[in-house]
Amino acid sequence: MKTYGIDIWGENNFMIDQGKIKVNYKSSPSLLEITQQVRKTNLRGPLILRFPHLISKQIDALYSNFRRAIFENDYTGKFHAVFPLKVNQFPEAVDAIVELGEKYSYGLEAGSKAELALAMAKTAIGAPITVNGFKDEEMVTLGFMAAQMGHNITITIEGLGELEWIIDVAQSCGLKVPNIGIRVRLQSEGSGIWAKSSGMSAKFGLTSTELIEAMLMLQENNMLEHFSMIHFHIGSQMQDIAPLKRVLREAGNIYAELKKMGADNLKAINIGGGLAVEYSQHTSTRMRNYTLEEFSNSVVFLLREIMNAKGVAHPDIFTESGRFIVASHSVLIAPVLELFSHDYQAKSLKLKENNPPLIEELRELNSLLSPRTCIEYMHDALDHMESLLTLFNLGHIDLQDRSNAEILVHQIIKKSLYLSQDNPMPEIERLQVKLQERYLINTSIFQSIPDYWGLQQQFPIMPLDRLDIPAIRAASLWDITCDSDGEIRFKAETPLYLHDIDLDEEEYFLAFFNVGAYQETLGMNHNLFTHPSECTIIINDTGYEIENFTESDNVLNILEDIGYDASKLLTNLKNKLASSDFRTEEEKSDTLQKLEMYLYQNGYLRTTR
Amino acid sequence: MKTYGIDIWGENNFMIDQGKIKVNYKSSPSLLEITQQVRKTNLRGPLILRFPHLISKQIDALYSNFRRAIFENDYTGKFHAVFPLKVNQFPEAVDAIVELGEKYSYGLEAGSKAELALAMAKTAIGAPITVNGFKDEEMVTLGFMAAQMGHNITITIEGLGELEWIIDVAQSCGLKVPNIGIRVRLQSEGSGIWAKSSGMSAKFGLTSTELIEAMLMLQENNMLEHFSMIHFHIGSQMQDIAPLKRVLREAGNIYAELKKMGADNLKAINIGGGLAVEYSQHTSTRMRNYTLEEFSNSVVFLLREIMNAKGVAHPDIFTESGRFIVASHSVLIAPVLELFSHDYQAKSLKLKENNPPLIEELRELNSLLSPRTCIEYMHDALDHMESLLTLFNLGHIDLQDRSNAEILVHQIIKKSLYLSQDNPMPEIERLQVKLQERYLINTSIFQSIPDYWGLQQQFPIMPLDRLDIPAIRAASLWDITCDSDGEIRFKAETPLYLHDIDLDEEEYFLAFFNVGAYQETLGMNHNLFTHPSECTIIINDTGYEIENFTESDNVLNILEDIGYDASKLLTNLKNKLASSDFRTEEEKSDTLQKLEMYLYQNGYLRTTR
Repeated sequence: MKTYGIDIWGENNFMIDQGKIKVNYKSSPSLLEITQQVRKTNLRGPLILRFPHLISKQIDALYSNFRRAIFENDYTGKFHAVFPLKVNQFPEAVDAIVELGEKYSYGLEAGSKAELALAMAKTAIGAPITVNGFKDEEMVTLGFMAAQMGHNITITIEGLGELEWIIDVAQSCGLKVPNIGIRVRLQSEGSGIWAKSSGMSAKFGLTSTELIEAMLMLQENNMLEHFSMIHFHIGSQMQDIAPLKRVLREAGNIYAELKKMGADNLKAINIGGGLAVEYSQHTSTRMRNYTLEEFSNSVVFLLREIMNAKGVAHPDIFTESGRFIVASHSVLIAPVLELFSHDYQAKSLKLKENNPPLIEELRELNSLLSPRTCIEYMHDALDHMESLLTLFNLGHIDLQDRSNAEILVHQIIKKSLYLSQDNPMPEIERLQVKLQERYLINTSIFQSIPDYWGLQQQFPIMPLDRLDIPAIRAASLWDITCDSDGEIRFKAETPLYLHDIDLDEEEYFLAFFNVGAYQETLGMNHNLFTHPSECTIIINDTGYEIENFTESDNVLNILEDIGYDASKLLTNLKNKLASSDFRTEEEKSDTLQKLEMYLYQNGYLRTTR
Repeated sequence: MKTYGIDIWGENNFMIDQGKIKVNYKSSPSLLEITQQVRKTNLRGPLILRFPHLISKQIDALYSNFRRAIFENDYTGKFHAVFPLKVNQFPEAVDAIVELGEKYSYGLEAGSKAELALAMAKTAIGAPITVNGFKDEEMVTLGFMAAQMGHNITITIEGLGELEWIIDVAQSCGLKVPNIGIRVRLQSEGSGIWAKSSGMSAKFGLTSTELIEAMLMLQENNMLEHFSMIHFHIGSQMQDIAPLKRVLREAGNIYAELKKMGADNLKAINIGGGLAVEYSQHTSTRMRNYTLEEFSNSVVFLLREIMNAKGVAHPDIFTESGRFIVASHSVLIAPVLELFSHDYQAKSLKLKENNPPLIEELRELNSLLSPRTCIEYMHDALDHMESLLTLFNLGHIDLQDRSNAEILVHQIIKKSLYLSQDNPMPEIERLQVKLQERYLINTSIFQSIPDYWGLQQQFPIMPLDRLDIPAIRAASLWDITCDSDGEIRFKAETPLYLHDIDLDEEEYFLAFFNVGAYQETLGMNHNLFTHPSECTIIINDTGYEIENFTESDNVLNILEDIGYDASKLLTNLKNKLASSDFRTEEEKSDTLQKLEMYLYQNGYLRTTR
């Protein structure tokens, strides 16, 4: 049985049972039955399933681990956390986060004006709001308005210019002053591909010299009392915990030094995000070397040590992990539309009475293959293929010869793989790639897993059923965009094997896991494929509910969204069609109706064969 | 004078005159005056300027080169072209393309249902429409409807399944049958990063065996007369012309073979796109080794040779170049918001009476620097810095010491660079990076140049003015997203130097060129920064007109677009603010008004300092 690495990335969120992947929670519905249920409405195209109980699980894990670490270490500061909206701003995700985090006073983090407006509208009064990123006067003022509303808001400055705005706004408007945070620039660097978030040339944060300057500015303007937090961020998807410890030591000392310099109301260290998610399906490409338990212990223990050594009270700890909170809650279901096999049938071979000599040689090689000779003959066959293609390009053999060559060489590779299976050779295994099956999936890689395109980020992929049947096809996945980058190629190091399916007889769906963080908001509308259909699945003890179903934009909406007048487009098309010649009036009205129906369907494909 | 490689990438579209970059067309307005004119409406944030005359220029170049090559080679086929919508589907681009291409019957290519609906609405009757990519029954039927409307449409099949749809739809509906094209899978591979568009494992196209099968299916169903085109695509942004010649030889022979097999109405070869655009600002990283003249000559000459040798009539030639047509027409203008200099002033140095020994040593090194000693002393200084940071992290020195160390080391590097300028050493030059200036730009790299993020694609960047003043600051660009990937780092191999600007006194804008292809449609809404404001600039003999101005989405629209109820959000925020305590009623109403105003402004920043 193939488990598709579920024990590596699955976190017990899912389980395989009776050949199906099921949600490992309460009534444990299978992803297949949920998918089929949603598709009963005649929905086609890709589908995002959201599982809010997985958000709840992650929030619980975060708070309980830090609370435990605080208790075990006799730490006197408190633990707080906010969800960074940039990781997923979609309403169904944000509403679930706010609702499920309420008991902890879990808050939101904003990095732009639109995110700040959202945080101000959605965060419960009392739960923290933090504001990072570069700001203008308007964004700073919005922060004051939030404070005025009664929000527990901290504006983290990224430079001295922003502090000047804060001082100005405080002096010019009568609004309540928000808490002030300062992002510090650390010398120590993180690990992982986003490690450049820290380090001396990082994009964010104040140097020591600027920190001292900021303290002076706050003092001179009688605003030091509002300075309550320092902030840093080691970089997203931290793979190794060692750099975190260095960074904490540095930030902890900066905190203690600022306290000693008179920042009496400074009381929190915001350690940003960085908690990694395991995206790998293969042991050899695991992505992190620590647990949440070790992470929380390290943070609490190190901060305690530093503060105790410097005689400073333990600060409150803030975290801004987003990926860790939402990655697992959404699963992308992509229907397989078609298999593009180049597994030629011998019946397509149409040899002539007189074949070119190299074709005759291929026939002979094919008939003489044995475990002993197969490697050598396969080399010969590939060499002949090259020559035959050159002959074709120079006009010396015809299309039928070329087709015969394709088929014969394919058969030789396949037979050689079979014959050498007791004595596998790396070279032959590499040739597997030539025999791979292509699965056309009804989704856009650019829209739904942009980090695969941009960062070669892997995501766990597996079929929804048939998990009790051996999957033996080396699989490449093609998406439906007109872009050759829209492909997940079979790789020998991280192989994906799928089933041999007759799609005329049965459906086949692939699930992409851990797509809840960044993928939705970064989604690119390549070829005008937009955000997939989505719904929220609430699982209870006896079954499940499908809520918040939203279908992917229809064709006319898609065009309206990029600035076209959709009703004009529709009228144009209907008029052109109506003024053409039809055999009957009925045919005309049927066709017009069909045209309109198609344009009101979502932009993905429905069925191919 | 720095020319920012304008002679490499500029194609004479722009010129430098009196210290400004100007559009090299008719009244030659400068980009700065256009920008300032548009911003007079109080617009802030990034701005896309579209120059339709540059689209016109490219269409003219394409047709005139191919027509010339056809004439010079006594070629008897015709030349046709379509614009692939996926490269830019925005209305102002598409409307300009359709209008400016009308005289050539320039058509549109579609790769999805939404694009096909757009092509059917926008293409003039008679101009070609081609349909590529994977299709379902609905998309195939839309193609029949287009034919019924009188469109000159060719549906290119990507697999035998699609051909079955076409046969079915033809038999079941009474609509006019569109032309049928077949994408062929070539053995030869292209060059450039998208080269995998061709080759045996490519995502697209039929093998020889499948081609023969398709011919049989068409014959059996009496539809062979509709088969009129074969199609291939060597891959976008083709850097080298040699592979094109191999690919043409292969495709030409397939065409001739199919004709010989009875495809009597087959009359066109669609060579797809691939014409590269020069994005480089530096001679060492030039991106193509051919001209449009060589490209058109090669295509026409080779096809003639093959057809003459096989005794087949010369086919019509179709191209689907998109990048070449629209890349240059749009220019992104990004205001610089702030300079983040780490060029510490000596005045910030606040030495104590008793400094740690390593700080004293740094002082001494700084005072003893000479051309002879600077390298050695700089090494010592960097080593001391490391040690001092470790001492800080272990709690042995304080924040003022750390700041002093930062300043002293910075001064030592700067002086060493100066002292060694007559005897430059690679190592010292690398240290330039540590002295670089950071320019915060009011734009999102993820939204406006996603290919920089995903593919490390360079784009030409230069300031709009001061081109007669030496630009000596090694520059890194930071965008306003909360993402450390939102940065264009200074690279010694492809350096960018900008001016030292006092932004309190004067404005400074950067232009990003050749952003008209793919960048807009692939734009990612990271941190909810959406498509920039844009306008079309029509240049005439005496001045220019600003048309089709569209401002970037406002905050409430942005949230509405991802599924929030904007009016509910606004009411929520206003109510919360209104129910808080204000000193006066006037202050309350002012603040409420300000809140509403901010939420109706676009999502980018306005001003920082």
